[in-house]
Amino acid sequence: MVDIVTFGEVMVRLAPPDYMRLEQTHSFNVCCGGGEYNVAVAAARMGLASSFVTRLPNNPLGRMAANKAREHGVDVSKIVWSDSDRMGLYFAEFGAKPRASSVLYDRQDSAIANIEPGMADWDGAFNGAKCFHVSGITPALSPSAAAATKEAMQKANQHGVKVSVDLNYRAKLWTQEEANRCMTDLMQHTDILITTEEDCNRVFGIEGEDYEEVARKLYERFGFEVVAITLRENPSVWFNSWSAIVLHGGTIYTAPKYDVEIVDRVGGGDSFSAGFLTGYVEKDDPDYACKLGVAFSALKHSIPGDLNWCTRDEAEKLMKGGGNLRIVR
Amino acid sequence: MVDIVTFGEVMVRLAPPDYMRLEQTHSFNVCCGGGEYNVAVAAARMGLASSFVTRLPNNPLGRMAANKAREHGVDVSKIVWSDSDRMGLYFAEFGAKPRASSVLYDRQDSAIANIEPGMADWDGAFNGAKCFHVSGITPALSPSAAAATKEAMQKANQHGVKVSVDLNYRAKLWTQEEANRCMTDLMQHTDILITTEEDCNRVFGIEGEDYEEVARKLYERFGFEVVAITLRENPSVWFNSWSAIVLHGGTIYTAPKYDVEIVDRVGGGDSFSAGFLTGYVEKDDPDYACKLGVAFSALKHSIPGDLNWCTRDEAEKLMKGGGNLRIVR
Amino acid sequence: MVDIVTFGEVMVRLAPPDYMRLEQTHSFNVCCGGGEYNVAVAAARMGLASSFVTRLPNNPLGRMAANKAREHGVDVSKIVWSDSDRMGLYFAEFGAKPRASSVLYDRQDSAIANIEPGMADWDGAFNGAKCFHVSGITPALSPSAAAATKEAMQKANQHGVKVSVDLNYRAKLWTQEEANRCMTDLMQHTDILITTEEDCNRVFGIEGEDYEEVARKLYERFGFEVVAITLRENPSVWFNSWSAIVLHGGTIYTAPKYDVEIVDRVGGGDSFSAGFLTGYVEKDDPDYACKLGVAFSALKHSIPGDLNWCTRDEAEKLMKGGGNLRIVR
Amino acid sequence: MVDIVTFGEVMVRLAPPDYMRLEQTHSFNVCCGGGEYNVAVAAARMGLASSFVTRLPNNPLGRMAANKAREHGVDVSKIVWSDSDRMGLYFAEFGAKPRASSVLYDRQDSAIANIEPGMADWDGAFNGAKCFHVSGITPALSPSAAAATKEAMQKANQHGVKVSVDLNYRAKLWTQEEANRCMTDLMQHTDILITTEEDCNRVFGIEGEDYEEVARKLYERFGFEVVAITLRENPSVWFNSWSAIVLHGGTIYTAPKYDVEIVDRVGGGDSFSAGFLTGYVEKDDPDYACKLGVAFSALKHSIPGDLNWCTRDEAEKLMKGGGNLRIVR
Amino acid sequence: MVDIVTFGEVMVRLAPPDYMRLEQTHSFNVCCGGGEYNVAVAAARMGLASSFVTRLPNNPLGRMAANKAREHGVDVSKIVWSDSDRMGLYFAEFGAKPRASSVLYDRQDSAIANIEPGMADWDGAFNGAKCFHVSGITPALSPSAAAATKEAMQKANQHGVKVSVDLNYRAKLWTQEEANRCMTDLMQHTDILITTEEDCNRVFGIEGEDYEEVARKLYERFGFEVVAITLRENPSVWFNSWSAIVLHGGTIYTAPKYDVEIVDRVGGGDSFSAGFLTGYVEKDDPDYACKLGVAFSALKHSIPGDLNWCTRDEAEKLMKGGGNLRIVR
Amino acid sequence: MVDIVTFGEVMVRLAPPDYMRLEQTHSFNVCCGGGEYNVAVAAARMGLASSFVTRLPNNPLGRMAANKAREHGVDVSKIVWSDSDRMGLYFAEFGAKPRASSVLYDRQDSAIANIEPGMADWDGAFNGAKCFHVSGITPALSPSAAAATKEAMQKANQHGVKVSVDLNYRAKLWTQEEANRCMTDLMQHTDILITTEEDCNRVFGIEGEDYEEVARKLYERFGFEVVAITLRENPSVWFNSWSAIVLHGGTIYTAPKYDVEIVDRVGGGDSFSAGFLTGYVEKDDPDYACKLGVAFSALKHSIPGDLNWCTRDEAEKLMKGGGNLRIVR
Repeated sequence: MVDIVTFGEVMVRLAPPDYMRLEQTHSFNVCCGGGEYNVAVAAARMGLASSFVTRLPNNPLGRMAANKAREHGVDVSKIVWSDSDRMGLYFAEFGAKPRASSVLYDRQDSAIANIEPGMADWDGAFNGAKCFHVSGITPALSPSAAAATKEAMQKANQHGVKVSVDLNYRAKLWTQEEANRCMTDLMQHTDILITTEEDCNRVFGIEGEDYEEVARKLYERFGFEVVAITLRENPSVWFNSWSAIVLHGGTIYTAPKYDVEIVDRVGGGDSFSAGFLTGYVEKDDPDYACKLGVAFSALKHSIPGDLNWCTRDEAEKLMKGGGNLRIVR
Repeated sequence: MVDIVTFGEVMVRLAPPDYMRLEQTHSFNVCCGGGEYNVAVAAARMGLASSFVTRLPNNPLGRMAANKAREHGVDVSKIVWSDSDRMGLYFAEFGAKPRASSVLYDRQDSAIANIEPGMADWDGAFNGAKCFHVSGITPALSPSAAAATKEAMQKANQHGVKVSVDLNYRAKLWTQEEANRCMTDLMQHTDILITTEEDCNRVFGIEGEDYEEVARKLYERFGFEVVAITLRENPSVWFNSWSAIVLHGGTIYTAPKYDVEIVDRVGGGDSFSAGFLTGYVEKDDPDYACKLGVAFSALKHSIPGDLNWCTRDEAEKLMKGGGNLRIVR
Repeated sequence: MVDIVTFGEVMVRLAPPDYMRLEQTHSFNVCCGGGEYNVAVAAARMGLASSFVTRLPNNPLGRMAANKAREHGVDVSKIVWSDSDRMGLYFAEFGAKPRASSVLYDRQDSAIANIEPGMADWDGAFNGAKCFHVSGITPALSPSAAAATKEAMQKANQHGVKVSVDLNYRAKLWTQEEANRCMTDLMQHTDILITTEEDCNRVFGIEGEDYEEVARKLYERFGFEVVAITLRENPSVWFNSWSAIVLHGGTIYTAPKYDVEIVDRVGGGDSFSAGFLTGYVEKDDPDYACKLGVAFSALKHSIPGDLNWCTRDEAEKLMKGGGNLRIVR
Repeated sequence: MVDIVTFGEVMVRLAPPDYMRLEQTHSFNVCCGGGEYNVAVAAARMGLASSFVTRLPNNPLGRMAANKAREHGVDVSKIVWSDSDRMGLYFAEFGAKPRASSVLYDRQDSAIANIEPGMADWDGAFNGAKCFHVSGITPALSPSAAAATKEAMQKANQHGVKVSVDLNYRAKLWTQEEANRCMTDLMQHTDILITTEEDCNRVFGIEGEDYEEVARKLYERFGFEVVAITLRENPSVWFNSWSAIVLHGGTIYTAPKYDVEIVDRVGGGDSFSAGFLTGYVEKDDPDYACKLGVAFSALKHSIPGDLNWCTRDEAEKLMKGGGNLRIVR
Repeated sequence: MVDIVTFGEVMVRLAPPDYMRLEQTHSFNVCCGGGEYNVAVAAARMGLASSFVTRLPNNPLGRMAANKAREHGVDVSKIVWSDSDRMGLYFAEFGAKPRASSVLYDRQDSAIANIEPGMADWDGAFNGAKCFHVSGITPALSPSAAAATKEAMQKANQHGVKVSVDLNYRAKLWTQEEANRCMTDLMQHTDILITTEEDCNRVFGIEGEDYEEVARKLYERFGFEVVAITLRENPSVWFNSWSAIVLHGGTIYTAPKYDVEIVDRVGGGDSFSAGFLTGYVEKDDPDYACKLGVAFSALKHSIPGDLNWCTRDEAEKLMKGGGNLRIVR
Repeated sequence: MVDIVTFGEVMVRLAPPDYMRLEQTHSFNVCCGGGEYNVAVAAARMGLASSFVTRLPNNPLGRMAANKAREHGVDVSKIVWSDSDRMGLYFAEFGAKPRASSVLYDRQDSAIANIEPGMADWDGAFNGAKCFHVSGITPALSPSAAAATKEAMQKANQHGVKVSVDLNYRAKLWTQEEANRCMTDLMQHTDILITTEEDCNRVFGIEGEDYEEVARKLYERFGFEVVAITLRENPSVWFNSWSAIVLHGGTIYTAPKYDVEIVDRVGGGDSFSAGFLTGYVEKDDPDYACKLGVAFSALKHSIPGDLNWCTRDEAEKLMKGGGNLRIVR
């Protein structure tokens, strides 16, 4: 019995070391990542019982992806295994101003893109669960993945499991029109929306004077239980600032803005989702959830790889004012 | 104007260091390789003017593959560039007895698999060339790649360019029946056949008492100008023995058998092809060609990666009896 | 509910790369290992549901050790966590003839050495289990660890869980006299004994003409259900031969002798234990168990680290004659 | 037939990883670099047909240097090979404020220092070329290298090839007096001068209120067709700002000032030269050339090694306002 | 005959590369460090004849620690060797804002913690020496180490060797009360005190309006010959500012405040001690000593590992205004 | 006061990892080595007080070379420092059968090649010493180095210090005729000659039926006190056999022949010299000296780098029959 179930693609990530360019490198650092995968791992590190559902090829790369979730205590028993499909990959290149970091996806025809409704055991997965999380990437993978996403959300609704969606628009996967049509449909099954101001505009055409207005417009159009918007400023590649706001029951909750020195910002938003959902599911306290999510995800930026290797204890300490940057001895 | 043109797939190769397994690794060493690519590079190192024809995605991985041929002086001006396809990849795992080394291909839907007749500038490529080399892997990639291979061979015949084929059967790509049908058809355009006893049996059903008999049966069935068969013994993963025989004008030519300590045997056969074709094209001397090919490819086993970083001078020295294993100072 | 429970120490292992000596190195490769830990992981890879019981400090090193078992699917919910003790470490140095590989332990006062009877939840751990495995290292760690080992064996006897012991004598931890006294006492709770000829002599003073005689003497003195003896020959550091015999119901079962090229032989014996116990627990077939254990552990020698990253499928293929050492494509 | 020919030394560069000091390191990262070599490669990446002329020892280090230019498509057929000389080397150490990065040269008696007039095939090299580029380093290598530089410039003048000089003063190679005498002489053959305010002062004793005045004084003294001055500010080791101005036909052209996070600033000026010359040679547009050169070279600072692995497309995007530092997906 | 003798623990330090977390890493960079060890090495690099006294296990790790001091010319002949104790270790994790760097000690029961009065040859060590340096860490290791520290200080007093103490409070090793009692006692043997405002408060309960007042209060309470206080500001993890003040003969001496880009700040304070003591012992000039100490230790922040691989020449150049951050060629 | 003084060149060694070729590598492992340097370090590890005399540039590379001798306890106070010369380098490439390992020297004009008689403090160096060791490489570096070598040998004779010479012929440095003339002259100052059968033939034209005869002919021609000849067989690159014989007082002493698995054979002969001289100087026992030298140098082959990181204890254990290749725990 788990607290949170997430569903989506996990890819093997290949990243050149030392700011080398893809074309230049002679080695890759290897890890695994993907929006909902990162959330499942981060939720497990926050202390939730989490389960990750995906479809993987039954080969060493697929096993690596499952292993590395299991390493953090994520339940992988609901993963669907395929004997023939390929593993999705992505190549990540780290930059320095004025060269932004970048990502080259190689995820066509991956096992999860070929998932179809009926393949996953949603009744088993949702039995006793409190929350289901998926991002806008999963339905963008393929029409059958979109159908499987809708199936999962409907099942979650039937099981009384709260549905959280990270809007996450990926221009390489579909057009804004396609995203709008599909995501608008899925919003009827959604209780919790997590997004950025920009994605909100690209997918739903919603703009506002400020983050609060965007949150309120989302709330008005779709009637979510709670909306969270993450806020990032990019003055350079190595330094960002990071925060979020949450709208719940008409009230806006905020968190401190953290200055972050960036080792690897991939998965920052996913860490927010996990921290926020942990606080929200555990304590039903949107203020605490927002602050926990922001502190936990601020820490993520300091860690190489998609995953957040911090502990809940570290996030709570930071929340409570642990801004001391002396060496911890 | 080039001496030799080769045509086939080049993949980015990802290999864990230090005998680690794919499922276990946290980094990959990166290089590029593929049968005909390896031959083009090795021929360039032998001193031939060589050109490599393939189809590559116009992204950093595709550029890397072209660059690394160009690094050795291979002409890459006839490569066909694609704005949408993906790069073929393969994962290589190095073993130790009793665990054999192994390879996991991820090459579906690569740019070269989607090549079609008419895409490559064969008239430009073959202008003044002496030899065209392709392996049985290229037509196995897809029906359109098979058609493009046939087109290339016909063009070579028209240009009076000798056609060399390395039979190279890949069970992951097609069945023995498919291979038999396609390769039998292509043999009519073939002047030089390079193969192993085992592939000969798997593709053409030809067996013999010994290597000589196999060579003679091949000769009888297809009427090749020359046939070369490489001979490998695998007493362990780290130690092999390696040689070849050549049948030309009814005469069998042999080379010494080398004991090889194996750093990386991938591309060993391709180095033989390059060394053999160099000797054959340059001097029309099958005995010299066989000995040069074997010496050059024996050296390949000591070098990491698909490519043979030896020089012609080193191969010639070994041929002339340089079995001294003291440190060269 | 698990098939097999193992109990013992897991250490963080620090090993210089590239045959460097400890005194010389500027980096360490990190992994985790320990006799019973290795068995738990290897059993999980064989397809058993396995659980590992130990005591770990609640710090990043302790969490790493638990994570890396969990990565392979081992249940770690019965691990006892300590807020104050230290993590056991060991330093491993890889050699080349005539310099043998060597190990420097730094395991004094580790959390597991400070375990005491009553700390672990044996009733929970053994509920529904089929087999309990421990080695002679665990009781050697400290008197309280010896008492905890005896407690575990008694509990296993009460739950009807078969008790397997790997005799494993460690001269750095106790004298032969101490080992003899303690292990002789523990043998009354033991159903399955796994050992080497040498350890048998050092702990019990049992010698024989050959391995069979040693097995029979063990059987006669202690009345085990089954005895397994592993056989290693060390002609050099990089090449060994490896096999085992099993005595069950008066019959000796043997396995083929494998020549192994050695990447890392640490954990070879543990892989045998896991493979043997898997076959024995699943099928009650000592012949199959012996052959499976030897094939699986022969493969271990080719893999860096204490753990066996092979699959059951690979072990079964090797058992069935897969001696082909060509590249698997 | 090439667009641009460059002439100078290429060295093998040895750099400790991770900010280690030379005295401290146990490994070196290897690449190749040198002012005019960097320009040849960067021009090839900009899309020009470029050729690099130097003199190299015919050993693995010399071949590596030629290979790595060829990797980017640079023509290396005009390189002069020596059977006896040594390869120039340099050691690079990366710092952090207040420790500046530093370089230790080991280039005495390199093959290129021993070049003499008559050795290189300038008529072949300049046939059809548009531009010849050399820096103040080449004549500083030795008197015979200075004579060969003068020979090359005269030949370029004869062939109607525009001559570009990067003033580049190296205090380790010659005194300011020597530089003044030699460079003043060479200026009569020079059409395009690229320099910094500081080098201008050190070599020609020219100072000014600001960069513009320096450019105008250079123009007045030597009558160049065009003068470019690069502008760097060093507030710290890891952050610089970077720009340039160009004086042409009496008009000053400027480019935006870029803030750059520094991975490796070696070769930054060379990238400017290549970008500037590309724009100038292709379009005869000093404004575009200045902006292209600055954008392309700003990107260089983010890439390890002497070479600029960016593409022209990336430089053009940055020029057109691509200051977005989000991850490119 | 040496100038300076230091006494304390040296540990083997294990640090994950690339900002990885301990729990996450698969390798450690290895070096050796410890407060007084770092001072001994840094003093040797400053040109003093220095000797380091400790107690080490006679195994490869103990030898590594002695070797790496000897590498810099430190005399290690007074080290006490143990055949049974263990080597102290520490794990260092590098962070990025808002995650501070941190250290996990594993130093219990190290050979030096088990040192006892009478074990070290203090008469031999102090023969002709000018200065003895120890920190507040050494007496905190164990009661016997505290007794040995007191013995050493008394011996130093007898030999007329000036005693320098770095107050260095370590909360993991003892309480503030224990530290207060022990260190107050040791102050009677102390001539030179080096500390920070914070440690002064934690150990002696001394606070002040500013650094000067703290220095004066220390002077008043204990009557030291000279007091030095280092000043660090931590606006982020990667950027700090660094300086110090010295109180001597009633006068306050100051040094410039350096902005430092941080590669590794461990050992920064120790470098100050070494630089300061060098200046003070050599020239009896507190102003020069303060400035030399600050310049030398500012440079330390740019170097990986505990040790300062700069030269005295570099420190002097920085003192004299070498703020130029261009590449040193 | 030292036991043994050695004199010669130390170079920084740059070696590609993982059997990569020089032309192919993107990194070098760094260490320091040179015949007499290796002997000085190995003698220090054997327990002798040793001193190394050379001439080094006063830059980070020169300091690294001195540091790394000092790390092992070698006295470096007699090294002559130069402010202008360069450091000798060598590039080492590791092979696999049939590709032998090889070395590319880059040592022209190194500081030691420019040494001249009168530069080194021989009276200081030899004060109280027992043995002086030099190889045939040092006089081959340059005429002035040959003169300095002769000066050193004469001074050693005057001080009653026994002179040991390792004949070591390097064809890259001089012709056999040059070597013959110079070395014949130096033999009059030589007490102990260490060589191989092959070098003996190349330098002195001495051949024999077997090793004994060669030793006897050397003895007869030059009247040495003792002659040692090392014996290597190269059946492959990764496996050799290794031994030596000693002729003293008309008697031949032999050592067992060791099979060695080769990690790095560079410095094997130097380790023999050090072990042999240790035994000979300490105990005047040629039998013990021969056996100690062979055991110690057999171990060297298992260690990366020029230096022998074994201990005397390990060498003595091997001598006494420690052929057990099990893991040392």
